[in-house]
Amino acid sequence: MDNRSLLVKAEAVTAARYYDIDARPPFIVQKAQGAWLEDCDGRTLLDMTSSNGTTLFGYRRAEIDKAIEEQVTQRGLMFPTTLSPQRIALAERLVDRYAAAEKALFFRTGSEGTSAAIRLVRAYTGRRVILSSGYHGWHDWHRGFRQVCWDAQNEVFHFGYSLEALAHLLEQGRGAIAGVIVTPEPGWYSADDFRAMSRLCAQAGVPFILDEVMSGLRYGPAGLNGAGVPADLLVICKGLANGMALSSVVGKADIIDAYDAAGLAGTYNKEVTPMAAALTALDLLEDGTLHRSAQAIGTALMNELQQQADEAGIPLWVTGAPLMFKTVFGSEALGDAVGQACFEHGLFLECNGTHMINFAFGEREKDHAVAAFAQALREVVVSGAADGLVGTRIVSEQRKAYARRALGAVFEDDDIDVPMAHGVAAIKKYLHAS
Amino acid sequence: MDNRSLLVKAEAVTAARYYDIDARPPFIVQKAQGAWLEDCDGRTLLDMTSSNGTTLFGYRRAEIDKAIEEQVTQRGLMFPTTLSPQRIALAERLVDRYAAAEKALFFRTGSEGTSAAIRLVRAYTGRRVILSSGYHGWHDWHRGFRQVCWDAQNEVFHFGYSLEALAHLLEQGRGAIAGVIVTPEPGWYSADDFRAMSRLCAQAGVPFILDEVMSGLRYGPAGLNGAGVPADLLVICKGLANGMALSSVVGKADIIDAYDAAGLAGTYNKEVTPMAAALTALDLLEDGTLHRSAQAIGTALMNELQQQADEAGIPLWVTGAPLMFKTVFGSEALGDAVGQACFEHGLFLECNGTHMINFAFGEREKDHAVAAFAQALREVVVSGAADGLVGTRIVSEQRKAYARRALGAVFEDDDIDVPMAHGVAAIKKYLHAS
Repeated sequence: MDNRSLLVKAEAVTAARYYDIDARPPFIVQKAQGAWLEDCDGRTLLDMTSSNGTTLFGYRRAEIDKAIEEQVTQRGLMFPTTLSPQRIALAERLVDRYAAAEKALFFRTGSEGTSAAIRLVRAYTGRRVILSSGYHGWHDWHRGFRQVCWDAQNEVFHFGYSLEALAHLLEQGRGAIAGVIVTPEPGWYSADDFRAMSRLCAQAGVPFILDEVMSGLRYGPAGLNGAGVPADLLVICKGLANGMALSSVVGKADIIDAYDAAGLAGTYNKEVTPMAAALTALDLLEDGTLHRSAQAIGTALMNELQQQADEAGIPLWVTGAPLMFKTVFGSEALGDAVGQACFEHGLFLECNGTHMINFAFGEREKDHAVAAFAQALREVVVSGAADGLVGTRIVSEQRKAYARRALGAVFEDDDIDVPMAHGVAAIKKYLHAS
Repeated sequence: MDNRSLLVKAEAVTAARYYDIDARPPFIVQKAQGAWLEDCDGRTLLDMTSSNGTTLFGYRRAEIDKAIEEQVTQRGLMFPTTLSPQRIALAERLVDRYAAAEKALFFRTGSEGTSAAIRLVRAYTGRRVILSSGYHGWHDWHRGFRQVCWDAQNEVFHFGYSLEALAHLLEQGRGAIAGVIVTPEPGWYSADDFRAMSRLCAQAGVPFILDEVMSGLRYGPAGLNGAGVPADLLVICKGLANGMALSSVVGKADIIDAYDAAGLAGTYNKEVTPMAAALTALDLLEDGTLHRSAQAIGTALMNELQQQADEAGIPLWVTGAPLMFKTVFGSEALGDAVGQACFEHGLFLECNGTHMINFAFGEREKDHAVAAFAQALREVVVSGAADGLVGTRIVSEQRKAYARRALGAVFEDDDIDVPMAHGVAAIKKYLHAS
């Protein structure tokens, strides 16, 4: 059945208007191989999303698929014991891999991983207040993350990556704060920035959680933690099982051991297949070759996209790490127009999201991406979609606007005195209550 | 590596003391087939848990494993489009299967499914208060479910399956209640009881959510909903993909369409493999033969276990539906002792939990289970573990004690006036605020 007929059916029985239909071009993928998708009209597209970053090795990586097949057909999908040989082996591997890891727990999704991390630090410290920056999934506890605010119901303060705000809150809230959770955003901040946050937490005696759902295997072979950012807990997810749902919370043994006290559970955390896939994935990562090659391709791709935009006179800022970078256009509408034109030229990407290549990217894939992007930029200029934006330079205001919208970031010139005062007052109530 | 060595390793890198180690016998399963497990000492055991009910067809059901293998090796695990041909086909099948279903959404775990259902009814109604009975997973929003109480932080009232309490809360809270969510417990309540709850909700204009995570494919071929309990939303999970993580929220189109407003998301909801498995699972269920055979075996098993206990003079109440039944002993300690003795005789079950057979159970499996159980009962009598409990009759107080502890149920003679008054007062604040 073709794309259009399937979309009509989907609307009747399952699709959400924005999330499933309007948020991306009207196509439905039926199979994929390496870096390439085939949709239900039989059309081939290069994928620069890696399915939200999950397929780190590319689609249908033979060694991983073989491990899955063996687990399914020779041993079984799921067992009644929460411990399996695969879980134990995988925990050992992660403990070896990540500096912060003394023990490892497993969940299915990134959201379940971050929610579990929050429960762990609350149970471990006996405190309630969480300080948070960035996106940690769709669960209830941090829906208001796009602005600096005190979320009273969930007992979370969103501090917008402000180091000064963090220092102030840790100082004023001493004794009330259960943990600090931050999603690294390498497009805007350096490892040093996160190292500074980690240091502040260590000085205050507050657990620091690095949400490496995206960055744990994409920032580098062992995420920001491997790049020297200490943490008490890490949440790792995307890429670990190359498209199978699997997340891990790793960290200090005494915090992980709060599992029972935190009341954590989950039937499907026992499913063995994703762990078998992850063990093979880690074997493939072992010697570092895959990361080095992909980072070289990613760096070249970032440079060439920037160059194409410069030549076309379109304002663009390419920022981030080679396996997770962003293209910040002069406006979101311009990004959308470029993305749509790329799609017409056989390249699927999210111009206002994050570009995530995978280990199946080589010169051919890079060249295809650059050619489609260049063609898209030319068409956008001709169409007039870039009018008023062409020729202007990307200035810091545009970078900031993107970061405010996407990450909930604040900058020195943003006035956050009122939410900060509310937050401190609320946090102090915990201190008086105890 | 043997059970014991693995357990030592596990404690060092991943295991929780209670949840992973103390909660079950010290064994680790390495493979399974049909209804049988093989542990890491090479020992074979019959499994009466079906891995928390997930492996409805038994371990390594060939047709389902073949569907998984084909998806993984021929098409791919995951695609960037949230819509896949498999998701659309599966939604159509569920809409056909469940009376309540007009549209279907997919998540990974039962907990994510129930959390999503709560978000949907809150977004749909614009109200906040949830009335809840029973267990709906490990997420934050309903941790206090084991007693009748008003959970102010999560805006949930736990009403303990009391029809009178439900009627009173719906009446007093008219205009403030976003939805009612109930997990059917066929060991204690009949379909008529849930039908009465459903009717009260319909009369009050409040969405009724049936949490059929466990019962959706185990109470009967289409759960309680298929047995004539109307609902606005159902959450279905265990058994759907025979051990792969997959849950579905199905129900009225206008509530499901609140997906965008509810801010639901989830990268791994796109994973296609579990949906391919579920499509094959539904094919296998189609003609009803598997359910009929398993229900006959389950009924015989319930009767024979009861008979063995009666003959041994051990007080036991066997209750529930043939594919999800409970053995209520005179005390939890006695249940534990019987379970431990069964394990020594090659039968793994959770005597104080729910017994869940699967479609791989035949006469041989039933006879093995009954023989092991009978032997365990004899040994428990001889050991003295049942002293003081042998010979007494299971009276209603014991049934009630179990239901209070496991389900948070209340009974006519329980005094719930104080939490009810608190709840009504809290709910009325919403009415004054709006």
